[in-house]
Amino acid sequence: MNDILTRLAAILEERKTADPASSYVAKLYAKGLDAILKKIGEEATETVMAAKDGIPDKIIYEVADLWFHTLILLAQQNLQPEQVLAELDRRFGLSGLEEKAQRTE
Amino acid sequence: MNDILTRLAAILEERKTADPASSYVAKLYAKGLDAILKKIGEEATETVMAAKDGIPDKIIYEVADLWFHTLILLAQQNLQPEQVLAELDRRFGLSGLEEKAQRTE
Amino acid sequence: MNDILTRLAAILEERKTADPASSYVAKLYAKGLDAILKKIGEEATETVMAAKDGIPDKIIYEVADLWFHTLILLAQQNLQPEQVLAELDRRFGLSGLEEKAQRTE
Amino acid sequence: MNDILTRLAAILEERKTADPASSYVAKLYAKGLDAILKKIGEEATETVMAAKDGIPDKIIYEVADLWFHTLILLAQQNLQPEQVLAELDRRFGLSGLEEKAQRTE
Repeated sequence: MNDILTRLAAILEERKTADPASSYVAKLYAKGLDAILKKIGEEATETVMAAKDGIPDKIIYEVADLWFHTLILLAQQNLQPEQVLAELDRRFGLSGLEEKAQRTE
Repeated sequence: MNDILTRLAAILEERKTADPASSYVAKLYAKGLDAILKKIGEEATETVMAAKDGIPDKIIYEVADLWFHTLILLAQQNLQPEQVLAELDRRFGLSGLEEKAQRTE
Repeated sequence: MNDILTRLAAILEERKTADPASSYVAKLYAKGLDAILKKIGEEATETVMAAKDGIPDKIIYEVADLWFHTLILLAQQNLQPEQVLAELDRRFGLSGLEEKAQRTE
Repeated sequence: MNDILTRLAAILEERKTADPASSYVAKLYAKGLDAILKKIGEEATETVMAAKDGIPDKIIYEVADLWFHTLILLAQQNLQPEQVLAELDRRFGLSGLEEKAQRTE
């Protein structure tokens, strides 16, 4: 299950050469960066609303939508989800735990 | 690397019983849901700004921050990152690919 | 010019009884609160992007869009823009200035 | 009451030469554009949360906060709230009403 981000990144890479009319993702690439970022703002808002509603399935669905659109951003910028995971790993290594414990804002 | 989300979720679970004064995450749990959601809105905005700046390291950093705070939301709601990954997997299974291709908005 | 918010609120009130098919605002009312809030999240993101682009006309346009959708929210909740203006006035009265000066976050 | 935006803009202009240590607004100017935009994203999220809570006073308070930070953005960019009001007026003049009625997204 955990390799879904890697597999998804491969699909998103393929979509770069797809016909915009054939795929939601290809259409979003064609619209450009601002359209992708607008979706990230929108999905973050929907995640907040789902959490306020307190409906577990809706929270899962909206967080998936938010992660999905950040993956599209990464692909569009030629970045990999593994780089984000490495950043999270770095923070939560042994020293990271302490760095985090001291972070106050 | 891909199991970092699972490992991180375990750390976030442990933090639920930590002293709020000892950890950033424990402090955020103590503040409650609205404080977590406010951070999600904030980190989404910072992701958008990093992407507009076009600085790869900053994009990775801010997406990591955004994912991190959605993981805190999931933990606070007793949900698992694997549920989000399963939702993404479901969408991008064979039928999912076609569903997605037809999604236009 | 300054009474535009009041005049706009009157128009938004009228739209409550309009056919959803006849007006953007009436359609948004029909979709309900979440649709209005989603637009607020979206327009805030677009304001951020316009400011990062540094294009004055675009900033004016997006801030107008953001204010417009907050006015729709107020109308939908049976609140008045004058209540928001009164809140701003209260903060920036004599004591407000000092309160604000001391606010640190 | 309706001239509060104009009066507030004048105060925000004065704050540009104030000591950052003496005023919340002066401190925000000193931090720069990204800090202002981060606040706009944050206040939009808080407006959404207040609306989901359905507490009128909280909605008024958060919309005031959101408008306030967009006014700071305008001031920082040497733009005037009257330009935003003029844009709203333009849209809702006679022809504007019809333009709006036809807008579907």
